[in-house]
Amino acid sequence: MTISDRWLLPDGMDEVLPPQALRMESLRRTLLDTYYRWGYDMVVPPPVEFLDSLLTGTGTDLDLQTFKLTDQMTGRMMGISADVTPQVARMDAHSLRREGPVRLCYCAHVLRAQADEHQGGRSPVQVGLELFGHAGIDADVEIIQLVLTSLSVAGANNIHLAIGHIGIYRALMEAAGLDASLRHQLFEAIERKALEDIDGLVDAGVDDASLAGMLKALPRLHGGAEVIDQARELFTGAPAPVMAALDYLAQLHSRLIASHGNVALYFDLAELRGYQYHTGMVFAAYVQGYGQALAKGGRYDGTGGAFGRPRPATGCSMDLKLLASLENSEPPVDGILAPSLDDPTLQQAVQALRAEGERVVQALPGQDAWTGHRCHRELVVDGGQWQVRPLANNG
Amino acid sequence: MTISDRWLLPDGMDEVLPPQALRMESLRRTLLDTYYRWGYDMVVPPPVEFLDSLLTGTGTDLDLQTFKLTDQMTGRMMGISADVTPQVARMDAHSLRREGPVRLCYCAHVLRAQADEHQGGRSPVQVGLELFGHAGIDADVEIIQLVLTSLSVAGANNIHLAIGHIGIYRALMEAAGLDASLRHQLFEAIERKALEDIDGLVDAGVDDASLAGMLKALPRLHGGAEVIDQARELFTGAPAPVMAALDYLAQLHSRLIASHGNVALYFDLAELRGYQYHTGMVFAAYVQGYGQALAKGGRYDGTGGAFGRPRPATGCSMDLKLLASLENSEPPVDGILAPSLDDPTLQQAVQALRAEGERVVQALPGQDAWTGHRCHRELVVDGGQWQVRPLANNG
Repeated sequence: MTISDRWLLPDGMDEVLPPQALRMESLRRTLLDTYYRWGYDMVVPPPVEFLDSLLTGTGTDLDLQTFKLTDQMTGRMMGISADVTPQVARMDAHSLRREGPVRLCYCAHVLRAQADEHQGGRSPVQVGLELFGHAGIDADVEIIQLVLTSLSVAGANNIHLAIGHIGIYRALMEAAGLDASLRHQLFEAIERKALEDIDGLVDAGVDDASLAGMLKALPRLHGGAEVIDQARELFTGAPAPVMAALDYLAQLHSRLIASHGNVALYFDLAELRGYQYHTGMVFAAYVQGYGQALAKGGRYDGTGGAFGRPRPATGCSMDLKLLASLENSEPPVDGILAPSLDDPTLQQAVQALRAEGERVVQALPGQDAWTGHRCHRELVVDGGQWQVRPLANNG
Repeated sequence: MTISDRWLLPDGMDEVLPPQALRMESLRRTLLDTYYRWGYDMVVPPPVEFLDSLLTGTGTDLDLQTFKLTDQMTGRMMGISADVTPQVARMDAHSLRREGPVRLCYCAHVLRAQADEHQGGRSPVQVGLELFGHAGIDADVEIIQLVLTSLSVAGANNIHLAIGHIGIYRALMEAAGLDASLRHQLFEAIERKALEDIDGLVDAGVDDASLAGMLKALPRLHGGAEVIDQARELFTGAPAPVMAALDYLAQLHSRLIASHGNVALYFDLAELRGYQYHTGMVFAAYVQGYGQALAKGGRYDGTGGAFGRPRPATGCSMDLKLLASLENSEPPVDGILAPSLDDPTLQQAVQALRAEGERVVQALPGQDAWTGHRCHRELVVDGGQWQVRPLANNG
């Protein structure tokens, strides 16, 4: 390896330089402070766990995304966390074991073995919330409200929130009783929104005309809140969980309209993201100019069962790197330049300014280059006293 | 894997639960704010880089400690960062390329393949500072002052600072001109402080009686500042770099006594930690009750050369997890409990309190278990108005 390529970074494994790192830190604090005020307790997941723990519950479809390592101390396979949610579910089920609702939040670097077209880089800083122990709509509403608050403090305008409900497709498929291969093909066709393929597969495998009609209608049901009413008509006679899911979505809609009337709500009844582990409402938030979702989440009841304690759960996650890119403000030029001088009165003056919260950058002996110090004032002696005065040439 | 051991964590890969995670977050902010006020700019290193980048410069002896991964996208070997310093050196040399002194700080999870007896766990949260571009003692003094400030805000009392200087041993060994095998044995013996072995090896390999005497004296020179004076006498006639290093240590001593008279200073002229990359002063800070150093650092000039731009450099690093364990304060009980009620006036009251910075934990419908919510007040209706009043039973 030559000097010229030793500085190359693996694709999607990005460094964050000044001033962007400062912006990220500032947003991190605003978000975690917000979550604290809503009653969320912070946890720090281990960056590595045994693979079996990581790939249970909500982690079941993370296998390809998880970097694997052999533990030299035990010979067992470990994985680098690709998603903090399964780890937090383990903490709730096993480490905390509290009764009643538990609210947890986190902010941690995760790693992904492959760049996902929807995910941006391979080293996102995942910030998220999980609410365990409550199965009702209020928990889901709280999570969505916090997502909208998070995006808004990050500087997002014109947020589009796409909402689905895994329960609809699940109940229809149960009623249809397709064999595994057909089920798999239909699932893929719906994910691709390939309407003709869907129609063909349904015709081939579903005898019940009413049920076939519902399955064909499903991928066409997306749009504003009117979709819910259309579905209620089209799905008359559908299994009870389908109607319950539609009632749920209608309720969610009115709750969100009341609290966040400025957010564009979009319903997609064939949204199947996270079908392996989601059990109810799922959502994703979009902002113009970003191809990928800025926040994702949903309900995943029963998680924690792999750790001996199934619990209702709902949550969301975002990428702090991505959120911090929403606003591109210039870094503050707020520093005071202090001369290089081994003088106790200067050291006292510098100390006093820093204690007041000022940024004081002290010159080093012989220093003649000044880049990136972001000072607009300087510390000078005037009448035997150290004084702060404006700096003629900012650098 | 059964449910009962699925929650096991790999040895030394710890999770941080509430309230310790909150303590860590709070200390993290205090430290990073302190560094900001001293002019240090934050950077966020990638958790993974190509192995060749990680193991250059200060990273040369990290090979065994670095977890290796194959990049599925290029087939090249990557490593998980075991020490942020080489990464920050790369940023200074390549990504930033600023002229003059550059001050950088960071706080990042790193991973170590093996538990090191001096390091605690395998997943420390490394917080540290690096000052590039200045070769003088002022830069070293600034770093040490920031280490002492960091330990002190973390709650450490009775700090012991052990100081050495790699230049002394290096100059004596150059003068001795031993063959590689003997040099290696002597190095190991000095690291073990095995005085008899050292004497034997020196007698066997060093003909010059004066030089032999100096090498034998070296591992015996540890203690208070008087060690420096003793060494000046014993090393009369030693190579010039030896005397320069002693002058440097004497200067460092008087600078630190002036600014931090309450810190116990300890000099060890045979301290060889980080010999592969350190080039001058090295230090480690200890606190009673902790077997390992709470902070380590030193000068490592010339780093960045691997990336095409050698620069003087000095810095330090600490483990935030360890620092946060110095104080064991109880988490604040500062919350306000709000009832579960879909009432717009309640939602307004909750929102207003949160906007004032209050922590408001809202009950969820049907909730009857209350653990860990840390509220000592509640929100109740009184005369048609929402009011905060003390809570009878804290939970």
